[in-house]
Amino acid sequence: MKAFPPFPPDDTPGEEIEREAALWRPFAQAVRDLVDASVRTAVGEDEIRAAQAEIEDVVARLRKEQLPATLGVLHRPNGRRRPWGNPVIGVRNPIAPPLVVRSSPEGRAESDFHCGAAYEGPPGLVHGGVVSLVLDQMLGQAVGAGGRPGMTGTLTIVYRRGTPLGDLRAEAWIDRYDEVKTWAKGHLIGPDGVTAEAEGVFILPRQVREQLAAAQRGEDVPPVPGLRIFE
Amino acid sequence: MKAFPPFPPDDTPGEEIEREAALWRPFAQAVRDLVDASVRTAVGEDEIRAAQAEIEDVVARLRKEQLPATLGVLHRPNGRRRPWGNPVIGVRNPIAPPLVVRSSPEGRAESDFHCGAAYEGPPGLVHGGVVSLVLDQMLGQAVGAGGRPGMTGTLTIVYRRGTPLGDLRAEAWIDRYDEVKTWAKGHLIGPDGVTAEAEGVFILPRQVREQLAAAQRGEDVPPVPGLRIFE
Repeated sequence: MKAFPPFPPDDTPGEEIEREAALWRPFAQAVRDLVDASVRTAVGEDEIRAAQAEIEDVVARLRKEQLPATLGVLHRPNGRRRPWGNPVIGVRNPIAPPLVVRSSPEGRAESDFHCGAAYEGPPGLVHGGVVSLVLDQMLGQAVGAGGRPGMTGTLTIVYRRGTPLGDLRAEAWIDRYDEVKTWAKGHLIGPDGVTAEAEGVFILPRQVREQLAAAQRGEDVPPVPGLRIFE
Repeated sequence: MKAFPPFPPDDTPGEEIEREAALWRPFAQAVRDLVDASVRTAVGEDEIRAAQAEIEDVVARLRKEQLPATLGVLHRPNGRRRPWGNPVIGVRNPIAPPLVVRSSPEGRAESDFHCGAAYEGPPGLVHGGVVSLVLDQMLGQAVGAGGRPGMTGTLTIVYRRGTPLGDLRAEAWIDRYDEVKTWAKGHLIGPDGVTAEAEGVFILPRQVREQLAAAQRGEDVPPVPGLRIFE
């Protein structure tokens, strides 16, 4: 798979995106339910084999036509973000719980979500790596919302106690920044309080850096596709 | 979901485990293929809706009988580990790539695996949180194989460059340890070399600590279920 094939930025109109979302959201939820049922079912072997044959048949039909690249490549933003394939927030990705994230231009992000049996590590607890997966995404959402987007440079997770499977809450915020780096913090909250804390360093892409500098000089700045600029 | 319901340790005989694995492995692979097809298909809307209806029907049949607890709780080890529900290595978990891990009593673990479109973060690249998910598991495998098992206390990931989707390799090893803590390191390797480095601190459970101390005093030590003792 090529990292950056020459596809144009996604300029699908807003109403068409809504229409497609209405198709994909319930489809991905059905597959997500199937993932959950896979680790929780207790039906007999014949039923499992029959289900397998049926699923293989569905897969063969879905594979008849495939996208020319991954969703991340095809949906590179042109004004509006569409992270449908994202394994944490992607509405079209059955691996994603998915998190619905509320964020603000001050660089804050929060989400209430559910982690079921498919995310289990130690008995009854969320896998420590799933905790880091969710927190990495949340810290990224906070820096993005605050106009300081970027790739993760370093991520540190401190596990305070086991995170029970079930309803959880994640919060993240920008702690501080300099010209190039943004430090974000966050945590995961279970029924008994904070279970894990995160700190991440995010590296601002050159394009955004140059636009921020131009804005500070009072120049008229063209919008960065899919990003808002931190005031 | 209760963290530790009173289920007895798993004492399923080895051949029965093999028989069950032969049932679940291809079933979970079919669901895994469906997850991949979900983010890659380009078939028409009618085909998507038909697939959704069929999947919902399979889910309803699988949900007719459900396990009384999560796989992690039901399969708590009694001699032989069976981490089938694990979201990184679980053969029965469609979220898991799954990694097949080779490990050694010196506290080393390695795995060659594949990350497809469902694990995408930035365009064409593995999600940074998926990188941390895989490395957390690998570090845990290394300390477990070395007889120093435990829950993750702290995990730090340093991202050196983007990890391209596709075939990858993960390696982990015990770096050092004291009475209670074990420091493990590891990295992820893509086609152009190391993409991310990890360091984790794992906390040795009291039961294992007491057995290690008894072994050092030359006492006859009962085996820790599912664990080998580091010599």
